[in-house]
Amino acid sequence: MALRVYDPRPAEADSPTYGAVRTDLIAAARCPVVILAVPVSRLSDVVAAIAPHLRPGTLVVDVGSVKMMPVAIMRAGLPAGVDILGTHPLFGPQSAVGGIVGLKIAVCAVSGRRGRRAAAFLRTVLRLKVIVTTPEAHDREAAAVQGLTHLIARVLVAMEPLPTHMTTRSFSLHMQAVDMVRHDAPEVFEAIERSNPFAAEVRQRFFTLAAQIEADLAREDHSAAIARPSLMKAGTNAGA
Amino acid sequence: MALRVYDPRPAEADSPTYGAVRTDLIAAARCPVVILAVPVSRLSDVVAAIAPHLRPGTLVVDVGSVKMMPVAIMRAGLPAGVDILGTHPLFGPQSAVGGIVGLKIAVCAVSGRRGRRAAAFLRTVLRLKVIVTTPEAHDREAAAVQGLTHLIARVLVAMEPLPTHMTTRSFSLHMQAVDMVRHDAPEVFEAIERSNPFAAEVRQRFFTLAAQIEADLAREDHSAAIARPSLMKAGTNAGA
Repeated sequence: MALRVYDPRPAEADSPTYGAVRTDLIAAARCPVVILAVPVSRLSDVVAAIAPHLRPGTLVVDVGSVKMMPVAIMRAGLPAGVDILGTHPLFGPQSAVGGIVGLKIAVCAVSGRRGRRAAAFLRTVLRLKVIVTTPEAHDREAAAVQGLTHLIARVLVAMEPLPTHMTTRSFSLHMQAVDMVRHDAPEVFEAIERSNPFAAEVRQRFFTLAAQIEADLAREDHSAAIARPSLMKAGTNAGA
Repeated sequence: MALRVYDPRPAEADSPTYGAVRTDLIAAARCPVVILAVPVSRLSDVVAAIAPHLRPGTLVVDVGSVKMMPVAIMRAGLPAGVDILGTHPLFGPQSAVGGIVGLKIAVCAVSGRRGRRAAAFLRTVLRLKVIVTTPEAHDREAAAVQGLTHLIARVLVAMEPLPTHMTTRSFSLHMQAVDMVRHDAPEVFEAIERSNPFAAEVRQRFFTLAAQIEADLAREDHSAAIARPSLMKAGTNAGA
């Protein structure tokens, strides 16, 4: 089956085509399977643009980092007789460097025969680990998994330059995690932190717990100064 | 050379001895090399207790996670004629599971012939990567490396249970980093966050940058609501 791509941006001479043929929006919308690989913030407009051109029995798939909002947009904007599959490949260019076999993909809102067949294709042909879930269950877990990953990465990148020489294994693992998302498109951070209805709550918990740890350290400092005046004096000298 | 150990706690029947013979504090202090493997908060008392029993030419080594305070305590409390070596093995039981060859150790305050010989022993016999540094340079880097690692670990552990199934590679790397320090003795966290004079500053930068990211997200949310009212409406429906 031919792979056709519609991209509003002009093709760059050196960009790989992966065997795909560029086409226009209408011709892309008339394919039997339509994959919407667009930022979550653009999905509403794209769904409106393709809706009049979709044929009955088409399977429409999205690949966004959140699932409640995209599935709601597709359900509201796509015509009856079109099957919908919400997916979230839990990997990006960094983690798929060695191929995608065994990597995870969350799928939800599997509607109709075509949705189920597509999930089977992902499992048996692409050999991905298919995690069947609901949009809400997905977004609750992703708020923690991706919300925390991207939040920590943002803060650590803002703190750079960080040590690269006198490092521990644990620190190196955190920095490897940062390296996997540091080049993600800004739209990915936007989708994860803003379009996931549970992300703000996760960030709030993170900050509250961090503030609590900071307060505990301040309190222990004070009691330690009372209990061990000689040690604290040595500490002050050492710090001077 | 016989390895002698003084431990104020009684030996447990099932604890490994690594060929060491238990002895009392005075006999331990009279060995040619004395390694102080004690919490930083106890170092001052231990130095005072061993000082009268050390023989001239003894090499005293500490292994604490900070270096300014321990080196200052040893310099102030140990008699003249005793060589001092401050060390910080940049690994723990989790990262040394497969052996210590190639792992990192910071050494500083190398004083006298014995200190230099000990550093050479660590490099050529134990085959560690020896990083020669100063107490202050060590503590500045460790404040970031260990301060951030343990701070992030504390917060993430407090947030548990976290997802274990629908995870990304980046999230798994963060959790592996957490697993390497989650069973560390509380004294390690204390030393890293309280006895390092630069740790509070690193935590402050972390919190300030995190708060800034949070404020940016809140501001962008507001402007997005004005610019794309239809999308935000779809988002609200999806979240309900």
